[in-house]
Amino acid sequence: MTERTFEGLWADLAPVGRDKHSGGYRRFAWSREDSTLREWFDGECEALGLDVVEDRAGNQWAWWGEPDRTPGIATGSHLDSVPDGGAFDGPLGVVSSLLAVRRLKESGFAPARPIGVVNFVDEEGARFGVACAGSRLITGALTAERALGLRDTDGVTMAQAWERAGREPSDLGRDDAALTRLACFVEVHVEQGRALVDLPRDAAGDPFGAAVAVGTDIWPHGRFRADLPGRADHAGTTALGDRDDALVKAARFIELVRAAATSRDDGAARRVVATVGKLDVTPGGINAIASHVTAWVDARGVCEDDVRAAIDEIAGRAAELGGEWREESWTPTTPFDADLVARVHRTLGEGVPMLGTGAGHDAGILANHGIPSVMLFVRNPTGTSHSPEEFAQTDDCLRGVDALVRVLEDLAS
Amino acid sequence: MTERTFEGLWADLAPVGRDKHSGGYRRFAWSREDSTLREWFDGECEALGLDVVEDRAGNQWAWWGEPDRTPGIATGSHLDSVPDGGAFDGPLGVVSSLLAVRRLKESGFAPARPIGVVNFVDEEGARFGVACAGSRLITGALTAERALGLRDTDGVTMAQAWERAGREPSDLGRDDAALTRLACFVEVHVEQGRALVDLPRDAAGDPFGAAVAVGTDIWPHGRFRADLPGRADHAGTTALGDRDDALVKAARFIELVRAAATSRDDGAARRVVATVGKLDVTPGGINAIASHVTAWVDARGVCEDDVRAAIDEIAGRAAELGGEWREESWTPTTPFDADLVARVHRTLGEGVPMLGTGAGHDAGILANHGIPSVMLFVRNPTGTSHSPEEFAQTDDCLRGVDALVRVLEDLAS
Repeated sequence: MTERTFEGLWADLAPVGRDKHSGGYRRFAWSREDSTLREWFDGECEALGLDVVEDRAGNQWAWWGEPDRTPGIATGSHLDSVPDGGAFDGPLGVVSSLLAVRRLKESGFAPARPIGVVNFVDEEGARFGVACAGSRLITGALTAERALGLRDTDGVTMAQAWERAGREPSDLGRDDAALTRLACFVEVHVEQGRALVDLPRDAAGDPFGAAVAVGTDIWPHGRFRADLPGRADHAGTTALGDRDDALVKAARFIELVRAAATSRDDGAARRVVATVGKLDVTPGGINAIASHVTAWVDARGVCEDDVRAAIDEIAGRAAELGGEWREESWTPTTPFDADLVARVHRTLGEGVPMLGTGAGHDAGILANHGIPSVMLFVRNPTGTSHSPEEFAQTDDCLRGVDALVRVLEDLAS
Repeated sequence: MTERTFEGLWADLAPVGRDKHSGGYRRFAWSREDSTLREWFDGECEALGLDVVEDRAGNQWAWWGEPDRTPGIATGSHLDSVPDGGAFDGPLGVVSSLLAVRRLKESGFAPARPIGVVNFVDEEGARFGVACAGSRLITGALTAERALGLRDTDGVTMAQAWERAGREPSDLGRDDAALTRLACFVEVHVEQGRALVDLPRDAAGDPFGAAVAVGTDIWPHGRFRADLPGRADHAGTTALGDRDDALVKAARFIELVRAAATSRDDGAARRVVATVGKLDVTPGGINAIASHVTAWVDARGVCEDDVRAAIDEIAGRAAELGGEWREESWTPTTPFDADLVARVHRTLGEGVPMLGTGAGHDAGILANHGIPSVMLFVRNPTGTSHSPEEFAQTDDCLRGVDALVRVLEDLAS
């Protein structure tokens, strides 16, 4: 029988969807692994004496209390992963929520408002390409029509994936009833950078120190696409001076993207990052000079002005290289609810750091929908994330649970 | 009815496998387009009064005379293309051969030795990944066992492609009988660089000038693979200074490859080229820092020492970037038969340029097998090749036919 401690729950999850070679996880929405994880969540909620109900996107909610009478405090995260992802991104929040509610129940705490635990579906968007699909769907930020037509790399639509999971695609959609149960949302998440590592070590007697931080906002975030032209030619016979090689241009472009961010990056308080992580090379033959390269740019940072300035420089570089530049998406800063952030900060102590994040989260989607939300970040000793090496020390994870217990106690009193 | 002039034959071929949007060709071995082209070749040989016989690789031969008694002079090229290839690479040699034999027949020429026209199959290797598959198979440079197991991008093996084309895979193999019919081989081909354009324009009264060149050798040629490591990480949350981005390394590498060739390239007589045309980025997500990039390098040049020196420098750069370097193939210089080259040069006139080529050809495979071979290159005004823009002026193509007529007359007298 599962021992319902942090280590016990963690050991339950450890084998699900793990690649034996890399040690990374592959837990995609509506896959067999996802189904195993959803059943596990059902079982853990049942062990807490809570019933799980699903909303119209398949997100799983377990309420302690009656949120249809009084909106409650929800806490949780997601169990899906990116391809070859880490163990912590998502599961740490779900496990912390289950443990915090157990602690409150065992302590005899009588919440004045309902407390709910949630497992959001498809947060990473690894299968169908839209991140935070579960929270976007119930808030209407993603329409059912668009979602059902999304395809995975095997050409399977979300509608087909739903059917294969024994679900009715016409059930999918916006769910105002699920959202009216929410007074606010608290998401525990592993930190995805080294911001907490770079702070002074925890002072003696300080319960959290820099092991936990309060999330203040989600950084502004843009995705862009540069199309760089060249001329198809034979790599063996075309003199170097006669070439118009799109991949040589792309190489220069990738370096200029990095330089544009580096020149504006001014430490944690003025962080700017810009990345080329995906490249399409046409025709892509070993003996063929590239006639076209598409490079995608992901740019984020603490201050909108800094990020936009980096993007403007990058767009200019693309133009200098003869390329076309297109904005695919732009999301301004998503601030978490200022009152809720301040209240959580007071509860945990003024020594706990405040931190923005460069990653998207379901908490951000809910915040954009007007639901007061906040995040708690648990220190990540290397900052590595979305990788098999993603890690947090158990001591720090336990301090994250302690913090969540305090926050829920305060908010539900 | 086809008018059997250069323009007439060219017009016959123009629509086969042509992409309406790009204007480029897609004529892969054992495809429907290939079948159309093979039938066309059959018909044109029949119109010349010649029977087509196939060897054990499916190469089509039409002999004027009895090569089983006296080995003859073969001429021809191929009709397949790279993806989105040009109209000239291959077909120019086949069309020139058909026209030259027609001219000789119509002039009443009585060859003292047989003359053969050939259409080699699968020269580009675009479908199964092995270039010059037809000539490699009959010479034994490619074994039937390996060939039959090669797969196209749809997973179809060459054995299955043969069966679908109504052929018996067990027929495939080395064909010494076909090769003993060959005293020598002459291949007309469009030039694939600007070497002839850069020469002084043709003198008045000179029949060929720089419109046609005699091929002397195929440059040394290597294919290499650099594996550049990085660390998977989240593109939104990882500070620039904390990254180990394999794609940033690859960008630097691509520029260093170009620089290593450029610093050694000393004009036409000491040409060195090195190219990265294919890149695999892992994981390849827009918001994922690349954990691994594989970059393929294609390097060639006039002098082996220059090419090897460039490769050594590139290998060193890969190592400096923490990468692994592997030689996938190395082919030393393939000289064409010195006596044959000299004889052809004398026949066409000392004013005709001599030229090495950076591309592989069936003539090179036959030369390596000990069959005296030579090539004639027809000027390419832009040097562009393996592209819809590949081009040669009709006047120059006709001078190529004239040159081939003279060469065949001389060799078969």
